[in-house]
Amino acid sequence: MTYAAGNLVIVGLGLIGGSLARALRASGFSQRFIGYGHRESSLQRGVELGVIDEFTLDLDEAIELADILVICTPTLTAARILEHILPRLPGRAGGPVVTDVASVKGSLRDAALAVAGVMPPQLVLGHPIAGSEHTGVDASSADLFVDHRVILTPVTGNDPAAVELVRAMWVSAGADVVDMTVEQHDAVLAATSHLPHILAYTLVDALSSSEASADIFRFAAGGFRDFTRIASSDPIMWRDIAIANKTALLESIDLFSEHLARLRGAVRDENADELLNTFSRAKQARDEFAALLAQRNGRKAP
Amino acid sequence: MTYAAGNLVIVGLGLIGGSLARALRASGFSQRFIGYGHRESSLQRGVELGVIDEFTLDLDEAIELADILVICTPTLTAARILEHILPRLPGRAGGPVVTDVASVKGSLRDAALAVAGVMPPQLVLGHPIAGSEHTGVDASSADLFVDHRVILTPVTGNDPAAVELVRAMWVSAGADVVDMTVEQHDAVLAATSHLPHILAYTLVDALSSSEASADIFRFAAGGFRDFTRIASSDPIMWRDIAIANKTALLESIDLFSEHLARLRGAVRDENADELLNTFSRAKQARDEFAALLAQRNGRKAP
Repeated sequence: MTYAAGNLVIVGLGLIGGSLARALRASGFSQRFIGYGHRESSLQRGVELGVIDEFTLDLDEAIELADILVICTPTLTAARILEHILPRLPGRAGGPVVTDVASVKGSLRDAALAVAGVMPPQLVLGHPIAGSEHTGVDASSADLFVDHRVILTPVTGNDPAAVELVRAMWVSAGADVVDMTVEQHDAVLAATSHLPHILAYTLVDALSSSEASADIFRFAAGGFRDFTRIASSDPIMWRDIAIANKTALLESIDLFSEHLARLRGAVRDENADELLNTFSRAKQARDEFAALLAQRNGRKAP
Repeated sequence: MTYAAGNLVIVGLGLIGGSLARALRASGFSQRFIGYGHRESSLQRGVELGVIDEFTLDLDEAIELADILVICTPTLTAARILEHILPRLPGRAGGPVVTDVASVKGSLRDAALAVAGVMPPQLVLGHPIAGSEHTGVDASSADLFVDHRVILTPVTGNDPAAVELVRAMWVSAGADVVDMTVEQHDAVLAATSHLPHILAYTLVDALSSSEASADIFRFAAGGFRDFTRIASSDPIMWRDIAIANKTALLESIDLFSEHLARLRGAVRDENADELLNTFSRAKQARDEFAALLAQRNGRKAP
């Protein structure tokens, strides 16, 4: 099976979808960029900015036009979009190729299986590990994905040619593409991203509900600002992720809570050795991670 | 009572002590800077760098020389230094004035009361909210404290003139000085600094002990780096703080754990409304804090 890539449909034109369109226009991977969404104003803005060439408010028309259709909405909306799209695809290998950018993969795979019974050959789930503090198509940039990881989670039933097309699309946008199982992806993201967001939201909410909250925020400094930055993330996106990745997230929360309870015990008992050992072990792991990240960014820097 | 400020003794010549000496030399607040410590190499380096004029390895000599003596060691060492110094001070108002920079104030007040029975008039506890990822006298800088907060915790029994001398010293180094009670200081610092450090250490330690730790650190990105930056802090300093501020820290951990358990319940129950409300409330509080911090830094920027 060979697939075309000329017409790219972006479902949900925000930072991620807009940046992907910009990158693929710059690289020449696709030639015609079509937006679909509910908010005409964002789509109109996308046309004004030259991010998309045209748009439609009719999802069936968008499917009709697409060689590749990329779902760039929050996770739970992505599941509903999939439920609409899948019955309209051929039940065998063939276009359009459908992919997504959501932060949880198991929930979308399950949504697809619920509708289609088997994994559609042309549905390839993926997740770019990229973002920005800014949102919306106005913040989109052609180099958002350069040297960032994209994780694909191909499954049995996928057409290998469809997987390769999605891989080629992300490589063309400048990304490093790696494959994982759905479960591996969701566990790694729960640990490195979803859990830290829950912790940051919890900390800020706990402190802002305390009696001394005015003093607390008045005397917090740069370290607190860095630590809580992710608590300024979009609440709707994170509500969706927390629900969609419930199983892996609960496991991560429980792992964290066990370790926190143990460290609390060491504080209560003034167990200097255990405190020093734990902090030293964590510092070493964190320093190694930071060195790895710096090396990766340094090596890949233009 | 009037106090002299000409001879400044720094006990423990690292980033904080070195930066204070540099700042006070630049401002002309003191004229002669004397280092005391155990490690002759650091003290020798301080002389080479022009941070101090001379040093001694004899604490009694350092006390003898001092108009102001600033204890700049980790928290538990500071308590031991105090226990040595206090019996050598006059039991009434008079020099030298002794102050410190430790992150916990209750434990030092208690150490002083245990030795002296009452709070010595010339012992004024303080805490500059400033630091750097770098440590040691080589990293010291005359502007480390500019526009940073310094919290003083004067108590009944302090000589008001000694408090004003320490205040003038920090103002001369460029800091914003505010007063708090000992309890208020320790509660605010537990919430905004000590708890976040415990959470960051716990997260990194929990993840690095999990089976998937190689993948976890391989796919962690910038958000995780910011969130865990404080887990690269000095383990000995944080062991001391965790023990010295045990009571307030345990309260902060428990407040956090209650809120985390509540949020875990909302994830388990897929309670979309509670998740959205909590995340939205936290985002609002965090955005307000970030705006406040930016305004403060902007207003005070040179």
